Amino acid sequence: MHYYPNPAAGLDIPAVNAAIEEAFAEHGRGKVQMPPKVYITFDHGDFRTMPAYIPSLDLGGVKIVNVHPGNPASGLPTVMALTVIISPETGIPEAILNATVLTDLRTGAAGAVAAKYLSPRRTITLGMVGSGRQAQAQVDAISAELSIDRIRVWSRSEKNARAFCERYADRECASMSLERVADCDLLVTTTPSREPLIRNEWIRDGTHINAIGADAAGKQELDPAILSRARVFVDDPAQAVHSGEINVPIRDGVYSPDRIAGTLGEVVLGRKKRTTADEITVFDSTGLAIQDLAIAEIAMKSGNFINLRFP
Amino acid sequence: MHYYPNPAAGLDIPAVNAAIEEAFAEHGRGKVQMPPKVYITFDHGDFRTMPAYIPSLDLGGVKIVNVHPGNPASGLPTVMALTVIISPETGIPEAILNATVLTDLRTGAAGAVAAKYLSPRRTITLGMVGSGRQAQAQVDAISAELSIDRIRVWSRSEKNARAFCERYADRECASMSLERVADCDLLVTTTPSREPLIRNEWIRDGTHINAIGADAAGKQELDPAILSRARVFVDDPAQAVHSGEINVPIRDGVYSPDRIAGTLGEVVLGRKKRTTADEITVFDSTGLAIQDLAIAEIAMKSGNFINLRFP
Repeated sequence: MHYYPNPAAGLDIPAVNAAIEEAFAEHGRGKVQMPPKVYITFDHGDFRTMPAYIPSLDLGGVKIVNVHPGNPASGLPTVMALTVIISPETGIPEAILNATVLTDLRTGAAGAVAAKYLSPRRTITLGMVGSGRQAQAQVDAISAELSIDRIRVWSRSEKNARAFCERYADRECASMSLERVADCDLLVTTTPSREPLIRNEWIRDGTHINAIGADAAGKQELDPAILSRARVFVDDPAQAVHSGEINVPIRDGVYSPDRIAGTLGEVVLGRKKRTTADEITVFDSTGLAIQDLAIAEIAMKSGNFINLRFP
Repeated sequence: MHYYPNPAAGLDIPAVNAAIEEAFAEHGRGKVQMPPKVYITFDHGDFRTMPAYIPSLDLGGVKIVNVHPGNPASGLPTVMALTVIISPETGIPEAILNATVLTDLRTGAAGAVAAKYLSPRRTITLGMVGSGRQAQAQVDAISAELSIDRIRVWSRSEKNARAFCERYADRECASMSLERVADCDLLVTTTPSREPLIRNEWIRDGTHINAIGADAAGKQELDPAILSRARVFVDDPAQAVHSGEINVPIRDGVYSPDRIAGTLGEVVLGRKKRTTADEITVFDSTGLAIQDLAIAEIAMKSGNFINLRFP
């Protein structure tokens, strides 16, 4: 059994995007096993267990990931993760990966795949709501698929927004109000908000939105009126209804699961798509176990592991 | 993060039994979180993901365990397992344990707890159906709770049954027919059978049965008429209905979930019990994630670990 302490080192972003796209394609074909993630709730956070199997990659396993919003105060990341790879042939645990950074990267890659297929244009003004690790992962992954002319970023902390822009000094990047950030081609929301931050009237026709932040019951970032106006694609219907951007509007009776336009897998396969340049499209991301397996497979090729005695 | 390659070494069986009993008590009190285990199916086996949280022990985590019946042909165990311990306070993975032997021991301990409370007497004739690793674990654990005068064992392989008895040379132990094995005070079934091995007419009044083998849909070891005649206790109702000894009779309409007499946790708490010396009692064991956490906690005290870099 191999342990990979730092499996994200040296990963090639375009290769990650391609692997995640192929995982979504397999999902769209109905060729994966992936039960909805299971939540265990603690006083100060939770952890989620995410098993899956991708037969075409001969790859099985499970990611275990926590969310503890108070962690940064004690110097730990909010989100930490392990992925355990299980041999389909014998069931033996073949590898354990530190999946904390991999989780950021695979979520960024899903946003990049959605942007590649749903963005209204190839050269874009990018609006970023939130400026943390996931915001960076989204920009880095999307940069491999689209040409980003200009970045507009909003953060609760002006200082964090400025630090974010320093990372992208090669491009025009500025900290702005939420309303001005929302005036863009591609809007990406990455906050843990539990109430809408983005108002419907701020979003112009033709915008594509990656709604990344909502990943648990009660979380939402968008005015539900945006969802009613848009074509909404999800990563996985069961997870999105339970914990995605649409979960609160569904609970409140202002959105209905039968209005989901399709999955990102179906978009990748060409079965579903943006139909006009003027329509608003939304990708509601909750994070899939198959993304974790797909990025783990690439990461294991780096060879950077230690041997553990098992069984 | 600590890795425990051999955490079962030196474990004290009475202490394991006590820890498992306390985990069942917490389950009986409704003080644990434990969603039903989730199955992923491969061509030649499966793996199960079992998350749980025991607040009274401040202990969260998940066991990952496979079942690949063809493994012994290639020198690997049928069942292999890892347990990952998650800190409730921060969500960080604190430890990973090789849980293959721990899985045997915690299942044996559940049988011992059931035997302690439900056996018709303290000095017993023990009937064993199956002679593999789990059969040994049951005898070893039950020996800490009851006095075993005599062991009767049946195996498909006469050679395996004789080897089993050599392990217990300090007691009267003999390989016998299924019918003669069933003539005992405490019967323990540990096979992967998919059809009833034990006939109703072989079971005398007052017998207690640990039905251990059935742990997946389609498996069964007992004539359903035994269940109709007995008071049936389960480890967890949701899991037992899906994958325990009662799963096939329920599917076939010859047993009903509303006939379950209670859980082992309720028995430990004294809320449910054997009511007469003559009645037959059955403990239907499917294996609970809280058992895996409880034994992991004891095993981690051994200190036999290596350090892994995380996060």
